[in-house]
Amino acid sequence: MTPIKLGMVGGGKDAFIGAVHRIAARMDGHFELVAGALSSTPEKARESADELGLLRSYDNFSDMATAEANLEEGIDAVAIVTPNHVHADAAIAFLERGIHVICDKPLTSTLEDAERLVKVAKEANALFILTHNYTGYPMIRQAREIVASGQIGEVRVVQVEYAQDWLTEAASNKQGEWRTDPLRSGAGGSTGDIGTHAFNLAQFVTGLTVESLSADLQSFVANREVDDNAHVMLRFKGGARGMLWCSQVAVGSENALKLRVYGSQGGIEWEQENPNYLYFTAFGKPRSILTRSGAGASDEANEVSRIPAGHPEGYLEAFANLYTEAAERIRTYPSKNGVLPGIDEGLNGVRFITTCVRSSANDSAWESL
Amino acid sequence: MTPIKLGMVGGGKDAFIGAVHRIAARMDGHFELVAGALSSTPEKARESADELGLLRSYDNFSDMATAEANLEEGIDAVAIVTPNHVHADAAIAFLERGIHVICDKPLTSTLEDAERLVKVAKEANALFILTHNYTGYPMIRQAREIVASGQIGEVRVVQVEYAQDWLTEAASNKQGEWRTDPLRSGAGGSTGDIGTHAFNLAQFVTGLTVESLSADLQSFVANREVDDNAHVMLRFKGGARGMLWCSQVAVGSENALKLRVYGSQGGIEWEQENPNYLYFTAFGKPRSILTRSGAGASDEANEVSRIPAGHPEGYLEAFANLYTEAAERIRTYPSKNGVLPGIDEGLNGVRFITTCVRSSANDSAWESL
Amino acid sequence: MTPIKLGMVGGGKDAFIGAVHRIAARMDGHFELVAGALSSTPEKARESADELGLLRSYDNFSDMATAEANLEEGIDAVAIVTPNHVHADAAIAFLERGIHVICDKPLTSTLEDAERLVKVAKEANALFILTHNYTGYPMIRQAREIVASGQIGEVRVVQVEYAQDWLTEAASNKQGEWRTDPLRSGAGGSTGDIGTHAFNLAQFVTGLTVESLSADLQSFVANREVDDNAHVMLRFKGGARGMLWCSQVAVGSENALKLRVYGSQGGIEWEQENPNYLYFTAFGKPRSILTRSGAGASDEANEVSRIPAGHPEGYLEAFANLYTEAAERIRTYPSKNGVLPGIDEGLNGVRFITTCVRSSANDSAWESL
Amino acid sequence: MTPIKLGMVGGGKDAFIGAVHRIAARMDGHFELVAGALSSTPEKARESADELGLLRSYDNFSDMATAEANLEEGIDAVAIVTPNHVHADAAIAFLERGIHVICDKPLTSTLEDAERLVKVAKEANALFILTHNYTGYPMIRQAREIVASGQIGEVRVVQVEYAQDWLTEAASNKQGEWRTDPLRSGAGGSTGDIGTHAFNLAQFVTGLTVESLSADLQSFVANREVDDNAHVMLRFKGGARGMLWCSQVAVGSENALKLRVYGSQGGIEWEQENPNYLYFTAFGKPRSILTRSGAGASDEANEVSRIPAGHPEGYLEAFANLYTEAAERIRTYPSKNGVLPGIDEGLNGVRFITTCVRSSANDSAWESL
Repeated sequence: MTPIKLGMVGGGKDAFIGAVHRIAARMDGHFELVAGALSSTPEKARESADELGLLRSYDNFSDMATAEANLEEGIDAVAIVTPNHVHADAAIAFLERGIHVICDKPLTSTLEDAERLVKVAKEANALFILTHNYTGYPMIRQAREIVASGQIGEVRVVQVEYAQDWLTEAASNKQGEWRTDPLRSGAGGSTGDIGTHAFNLAQFVTGLTVESLSADLQSFVANREVDDNAHVMLRFKGGARGMLWCSQVAVGSENALKLRVYGSQGGIEWEQENPNYLYFTAFGKPRSILTRSGAGASDEANEVSRIPAGHPEGYLEAFANLYTEAAERIRTYPSKNGVLPGIDEGLNGVRFITTCVRSSANDSAWESL
Repeated sequence: MTPIKLGMVGGGKDAFIGAVHRIAARMDGHFELVAGALSSTPEKARESADELGLLRSYDNFSDMATAEANLEEGIDAVAIVTPNHVHADAAIAFLERGIHVICDKPLTSTLEDAERLVKVAKEANALFILTHNYTGYPMIRQAREIVASGQIGEVRVVQVEYAQDWLTEAASNKQGEWRTDPLRSGAGGSTGDIGTHAFNLAQFVTGLTVESLSADLQSFVANREVDDNAHVMLRFKGGARGMLWCSQVAVGSENALKLRVYGSQGGIEWEQENPNYLYFTAFGKPRSILTRSGAGASDEANEVSRIPAGHPEGYLEAFANLYTEAAERIRTYPSKNGVLPGIDEGLNGVRFITTCVRSSANDSAWESL
Repeated sequence: MTPIKLGMVGGGKDAFIGAVHRIAARMDGHFELVAGALSSTPEKARESADELGLLRSYDNFSDMATAEANLEEGIDAVAIVTPNHVHADAAIAFLERGIHVICDKPLTSTLEDAERLVKVAKEANALFILTHNYTGYPMIRQAREIVASGQIGEVRVVQVEYAQDWLTEAASNKQGEWRTDPLRSGAGGSTGDIGTHAFNLAQFVTGLTVESLSADLQSFVANREVDDNAHVMLRFKGGARGMLWCSQVAVGSENALKLRVYGSQGGIEWEQENPNYLYFTAFGKPRSILTRSGAGASDEANEVSRIPAGHPEGYLEAFANLYTEAAERIRTYPSKNGVLPGIDEGLNGVRFITTCVRSSANDSAWESL
Repeated sequence: MTPIKLGMVGGGKDAFIGAVHRIAARMDGHFELVAGALSSTPEKARESADELGLLRSYDNFSDMATAEANLEEGIDAVAIVTPNHVHADAAIAFLERGIHVICDKPLTSTLEDAERLVKVAKEANALFILTHNYTGYPMIRQAREIVASGQIGEVRVVQVEYAQDWLTEAASNKQGEWRTDPLRSGAGGSTGDIGTHAFNLAQFVTGLTVESLSADLQSFVANREVDDNAHVMLRFKGGARGMLWCSQVAVGSENALKLRVYGSQGGIEWEQENPNYLYFTAFGKPRSILTRSGAGASDEANEVSRIPAGHPEGYLEAFANLYTEAAERIRTYPSKNGVLPGIDEGLNGVRFITTCVRSSANDSAWESL
């Protein structure tokens, strides 16, 4: 099969997530990166493009969108991996020209931008895919299936947390700086950067929708303008309740995303740092350890696994699963299927951030999303 | 050293916690159980006393308190291990007669009872000790010392949770029945039975006081009159924030009490089900595993350990540590020292329960304790 | 029930295992320690006896055996917790007077002593019980039952290891000194002190008998006269094969006894440092975690458990299980039942040591036990 | 940088390791797969090549070697991923034509083949790289550096094991069939397929050479012609001792490669199934957990890591590290550097297998390699 021609906006030198997208796009051989506007600094954009051996480098995403749309062999899809405040305009530029967009999360830095982008995305002749990459883990797919098939009964309690410690002190590098700058990151700090992942994952696995939340946000580091720790209580439609904790000052935590779901007949637990395991307990039975590609792995998990049990897959493989599913969607466009997060999940995430901020400012009053 | 003569109220056949108290009292040889009013049913009380080989059995705690106080060789101390609603009257009966009281938690089933008992305890010529037994774990003692000595800097975030699943369905045994009956248990279900432990432990380890809380309580099982799951956000004096989750419907959880404390310079994590380990991280350093009696164990931990590292101690040893410390307090009465939980912690626990109930009824408004 | 009157030989100040025996004897209330010859130094013996509040203290075990046998209220049983070279003479002194013996392992320091003791024990009117305490763990009882009931099919492979690090450097305390002195410890160092436990446990759980072994023993610390690390290959009657590793120089290992048994249809794994869990896998099924007192706990495990799942029991509880079973055996003597290790296991253990030494000296030739 | 043109021998439909090599070669973008002789069945070779979109497909490796060597734009390197018995002839065909070889392990199915291949490889104008892929894990690189830098002192004990359970019953698929056929796999079953990995890793990390071994091999499954479980004692040059256990019938084990190294001053432990962690203990200090890209990660580990701590990398990333290092070697050929396993490690591995077989046949006599 001919690889899909991919462009990239952002992701120049020193970027973290751009490199991840490139590996993910390459892993299963479905994409070929051919063009980019890799930095907001044109010089750096060119250097980065040279290093990566791109065929075409642009000074900015507008030029890129226009030019690629006019090329016969122009890109089929673009990955947007800039800081958050650029997402909306960049995505719109490509969507309006019929180029599929694969965008990093959170959707945008403001709710206004999100709504503007939603409008375009809904009417565009192109896909909008949001890389809530943790949904790509095989055991998360199995967790979702376990809940959907009723194996844990009616969901009652959802505990989700995402703890890091890299912002324990004032930001001292590029990654930390833009993520703690409300103009580039948005109103949420930890809530936007990692809380949105946790929020998305809880809904992805349970199939439930959060109706309202009560939040208490904190900024523990002096002069930090966004939250670096957040406590959030959740109410789901249908009666389930939950708690979400996200923190970037939890010393000793690297990337500790953890999800636990308890129902009337069973419970499941999963941790991102050891993602090949899913703990499942049917009430009254011993806990069992389901492993990726292992004896108890479901079809849903096996479809997104590459290698046998005991040969650990990790973050990059999960991320690559989204790219591979994106390739499938692009090749069969406009037919719809699959579970890829998109524009609705994006808007939902931005609403999560703004609702957290509103609730916290309002003394943790319950606020609807 | 002559053993201290101990009596017991409650703890007859089929009781869980009474048997635990007896083993704990016996383990280090400081107590001899000689008298009891082991059941509210006189016949059962006598049978239970016979089985245990008690010297004196009583039909009720009033008779027992009066009689023992008048005996030259009467009991020095009494363990009260009844359902919660009996605690206050029983404790008062003994305290007023100068007999030391070792009482199970929560202090009482109502705030009124708690306040009445506090008054008596403060004026009594006898000790009042509350068995928040999880404070007896060696690595909890070390955790407390780590925080107190500033090794994690200023405390920012406290995550405490206590999850069980034994009340996932309607109660079907004696233990479950009284614990879900508000008349015997009090207004709190999971909050009273296990939430008070979590709440106490968070404060014990951090040395901080919870100032206010915002709670969302649930009763997932039909017709249950008390909470079986609770989500609580915490604000500590001095600015630290926290979350407390307690649940008795978290399928797959046995007795999963877990405490995590994060400060400006370090973090600690501890789990009751594997209590011989304490995870400590100084910011910017690898995580280390402190083990009971091991290379990094502190004096505070070693003082309450019996055997070498790698020879696991458990729940009963931690419980026995409180009894051994109680023996020391009784023998040196009225001099004061040590960290044993007492009447203040008991009142604080009851306030935790009632404040949770009040906040939850008030749409999770922040309420002062 | 009246407590059994217990005496103790060894176990004075600074001893480790004597204190463990006392707690174990006390935990379930079946024994009362009344007499002792607690040290080979009479002065120290008396001081230790005073500290423990013993009724009768003796200068040596001979006097004690004679005197107690003549007392109407003399001891029913004696715990022998001296260094290994004293076991035989002490045990014989009591057995010949009809006093039950509870003896620490290994049985003796020489094979000659062992055979001499066996002869006496077989003809005595008293029990001989050997505290291979790891057999007292509930999940070890369940493991044994799982194998016996055929749940893992025919046993093929047995991996057992016991790693410590406290003798990484030259011995610097009393515990280390006698254990590395062949005159007091016997020809085996790590093989005698901990290898015998591992060897016993492998056979206890599988129900199989080791037929021959091939050993490579080492003494890594300069001037050490006994092994501090041993590699042993095992052949069981019936065709199963195994490996045993014991080490007292494995830096980072505290008391890491671990047993794994694999059969034609399943496998089990257990670690002493987290003894409340047993991992069980039926071939082709997910691994399950069996927990003490938990949903999958067997009758065999529950019979030797005291408290609910999630409330960890440890080393002392397992040790106490042997004492409680000893009490049952003593009270129903001479009727036989139960699984308590005794004189046969003791002789087998000494043969393990001497066979290891012989094989290692013979360039690891396979040697029959 | 222009990708290196890669060919592949073996790895057609249904193959496991061929697909792994392809992902590994693709992950970091250094290789482009352009040609192949993907199956010994020409028809299947063509179909597989079509599926993968190869430019050139051959019926057999001889034709491929000849043709590619004559093409101006022919392959620079070839990956050999056939069953073991084909390795030697295939590798020789390419090496003799100056095409670099990246070959799966074990080197060959017989010692004769191995020696023949060594001779060619030593004189060839091309690299020979052996994919002992577990050496590619970042924390293995750090473990190697820890030992080399003396942080654990002098190495005393090496425990390595590699347990699987997929051959618990008679082989029922292609992967199992050739691996249990001595004509295709060689004289070793589990020793060849996974024991060689364990053996290599122990030496890679310690920097030590195994001098002699004593082995006891078993075939537990009826009619199996090669070992499916092996117990091996090891003696290293310089005095260290070790144990190696490999098994393909250890029910409940997926791909449980585990290495532990103990020295006079410290110890390290690592498990392949959770490869992002390395446990390190300095004698007399608490154990610490070193994590990939984490606070304690060394330069050696960071050089082969792609993403931040807590974002798990796995088997494919470790495998890709070898490919990326191979690319570097190819681009700088013939200058030498790095730690890539090659022909010497290959020969050593085959000697491991044959020496195990010889020792086992000789009643586990110690045999030199």
